Parts: sequence; structure tokens; C-alpha cells
Amino acid sequence: MAYELYYWDGIQGRGEFVRLALEEAGADYIDITRQPGRGTGAMFDIMKSDSEPHIPFAPPFLKDGDLIVPHVANILFYLGPKLGLAPQDEGLRHVVNGLQLTVTDFVAEVHDTHHPIDMSLYYEDQKPEAKARSAAFIRDRIPKFLGYFERVLRQNPKGPNHLVGDALTYVDLSLFQVIEGLSYAFPRAMTNRKAEYPALLALHDALAKRPNIARYLASPRRLAFNEEGIFRHYPELDSAG
Amino acid sequence: MAYELYYWDGIQGRGEFVRLALEEAGADYIDITRQPGRGTGAMFDIMKSDSEPHIPFAPPFLKDGDLIVPHVANILFYLGPKLGLAPQDEGLRHVVNGLQLTVTDFVAEVHDTHHPIDMSLYYEDQKPEAKARSAAFIRDRIPKFLGYFERVLRQNPKGPNHLVGDALTYVDLSLFQVIEGLSYAFPRAMTNRKAEYPALLALHDALAKRPNIARYLASPRRLAFNEEGIFRHYPELDSAG
Repeated sequence: MAYELYYWDGIQGRGEFVRLALEEAGADYIDITRQPGRGTGAMFDIMKSDSEPHIPFAPPFLKDGDLIVPHVANILFYLGPKLGLAPQDEGLRHVVNGLQLTVTDFVAEVHDTHHPIDMSLYYEDQKPEAKARSAAFIRDRIPKFLGYFERVLRQNPKGPNHLVGDALTYVDLSLFQVIEGLSYAFPRAMTNRKAEYPALLALHDALAKRPNIARYLASPRRLAFNEEGIFRHYPELDSAG
Repeated sequence: MAYELYYWDGIQGRGEFVRLALEEAGADYIDITRQPGRGTGAMFDIMKSDSEPHIPFAPPFLKDGDLIVPHVANILFYLGPKLGLAPQDEGLRHVVNGLQLTVTDFVAEVHDTHHPIDMSLYYEDQKPEAKARSAAFIRDRIPKFLGYFERVLRQNPKGPNHLVGDALTYVDLSLFQVIEGLSYAFPRAMTNRKAEYPALLALHDALAKRPNIARYLASPRRLAFNEEGIFRHYPELDSAG
């Protein structure tokens, strides 16, 4: 039975971290809300159900038969072994999950660059605060997070081609997406910084060339970044840093 | 061999979610940085190591022999089965993990009520923005998150005494801590709201009476809440909502 992915229909957003793993593995999945004639109704039906025993707080969530698995890191932890994108060793699976949760935190901070005060308001209603938060993000947080992942690659005893062990795992794919997203949202900051993270950039470039990823990126299933998603390009928030 | 917990030495913070699980289970653990003569040096030695293969991004992290497991939800996912605080069923473990990750998101939003712009600055340097963010948090986010967890309890097919299944899991203990923390940080908001979440409050009160938890809360191992932690009481940020 195909996996069912539930997420907003018009953005990459957090759903994209799950899509990249499913696409790399060539897994059979349905991106439910993007099916012709569907939309987000089916997603809200589950979230608002008053009978479903395990309701998710927010999208994305995965449905595998009757089981509903919410949260990106949880979905990937669940799918990783099934898709051949997790280590065999149980302890190393928790190492991968720990890295994925650092990605989760970083992505939440990316979101807050354009929504630092109130996520129920528009970006346009919190622009001065967004500018202040983005300046701190570019100055402190991008170097802190990317510097950390660069160290993880360099200190991997199996070599710098993967974050954990000597084979591809789902967190490698998530780092690919982080680099993609930051390069879209903060091109000036990233242009000035990229040389500091050679192992991360090499990982990104290698993954872009993997056949299933290259095919996905060129397909209509890969939505373009836009200003409804997590990674948004507002030139006034970007700076050389 | 005892589990080693690494976290800041003067606050409950995120480490408290791990401590509550270890204490409930009566597990053998060492709160490393709080040992006489230790402090946070041992924690930073691991984080800054240039030879450790799996460096954590931030505390808390758990050391179990050679394995380092970072992030609260990851530590609890790892410990849950070993401590008898996770369901037997593999799918339900991912349900518990999904709920724990919703707690993670909520706790990050609590942090941002006093640090909405720049976490490298003091609260005092971002007070107007903190007031705006706290107002939105009290108005929108507390009801959204607590309302969700209340629904999860009510829709549990096994009854409203636990979030998942018919036995205690670590995420029940984390919800206890969330209620404790919110009641400390936002007493006015919570006083006005508590009646809306009877199942959550009943869970909180029942857990406070469990022998190991009651003993822990009365011990010097339970630090008091303070204004260095995640849950901070700044009267000017609290309101009846």
C-alpha cells in the first residue's frame, strides 16, 4: 500500500524533507492534497476528527495504513529503515535522529526570521522585528548551525561524504534541502559564507546529482520556493552579514 | 552502568523532561554538571571535542556507555523502552514520539516569549518585542497547544488518564512539566484558563502524587524554577488573556 503524505498543497515547506527521502528511495507514495480535485480538505478532516485516536497537531503527517505519524523527524525515523536510508545499528539511528532534530530547530529559526512576533499575522505586520531577527540569524545562527554540521562531516570516522557512517541516510538529504533553502532565502549571506563549509557544499552538490534526486528536482513534483513557505526570499532581510 | 545526563547546572530547563522520566523509573543516573566539583566543563569538553565522532549541537544530551544521544525527544525515545515508559507496540512508540515533538515545539515557543529577537541578548534588551510575542502566545498558542493535548486525552480509546494507551509513558510526564512551567511563568493566564483543560489538569495532579515523582519534587535534586531557565516569570509578560 502506498504511503500517504499530508501537507499543505502549494509549498515545499517541512513536507519537502519527507518528499526527498521518499523520492530518493523510489517509494510508492501519494502527496494527498496535491492530487487532482483534492486540496487540503482531507488533511483537515484528520486533524479535526473527533474520533481518530491519534490526531496530529499540524502537518506534515504520514499515513501508513491505520498508523498516523506526525512531525518530520518522527516520519523520517519511522521511514528510514524501511527506505534503506537509516543505519543498521540502533544507536546510530539515534545519532541520525539527533542530527535531524537539530535540522528541525534550525528550520524553526528560519521560519521565525519572517515571523518573529506573531505567526497569525502577515510578515508585513512585523517587518522591523523580522529585520532585527534576521540580522541576528545571519550573524550568529547560520554560522553556528552550518559550522556544526561541517564539523560533524569532518569528524565522521567513515569520511566526510555523509553525516553518519559510510552510506546515505535521510539526514544527508535534509542537509541538502537546508542548503537549497538558505541559498534561496539569503543569497547574499550565503554567497559570502559558502567557502567556509566545503564539506557541506560537496555533500549538497553530490546529492543533487543522484539520479532519483536529479529526476525529482526536474519534475513538476518539485514545487518552486515561494513566499508562502518556510524559506522565503525577502531582499530586505538578506545581507552580506 | 549509570546513565550520564549532561545539561546546564542551575536550571530545570529542557533537562527536566529527561530527569522526570529517569526519576519516575528509579533509574541509575548521574546529573554530571551538578556533581560536587564538576560544573559545565565536562559538558563543553564533549561539545567542543574535535575527535568525538558524534558531537551534540547543544545540551541536554545523554551518555550511555560510548553512545551520545542528544535532544530531549530523542533521549526519551531511546530511554522509553528501557525505563518501561514507552508502549510495546512500535507504531504507538512513534505516536508517543510525535506528541513529544509537539511538546518540543511548544517549549521552543515558550523560550521565544522572552527571547523573540536575539537569543544572544538579554531579555531586558528585547522587552517590547517580548511583550508583543507573549500577548500572542497567551491569546493564541496556549489555547492551541493545551486544547490539542486535552483532545488527545479525551480521544484516547483507552481512556483519558494517559495520552497514549492505558499506561504511563514519558510524554505524560512531559505534559506534567509543561503545566508546572506554564503555571509558574504565566500564573494569571493559567488561572483563567485551567478550567478549560480538565483532563490535562487531572493528569498533572495524578502524576504529582506518584511516589517517585512526589519524592523527587520534594528533594534537592528538583531545582526551583528561575529566570535563567525556559519557563520564566516576568509579571509584565503575563496577562489574564
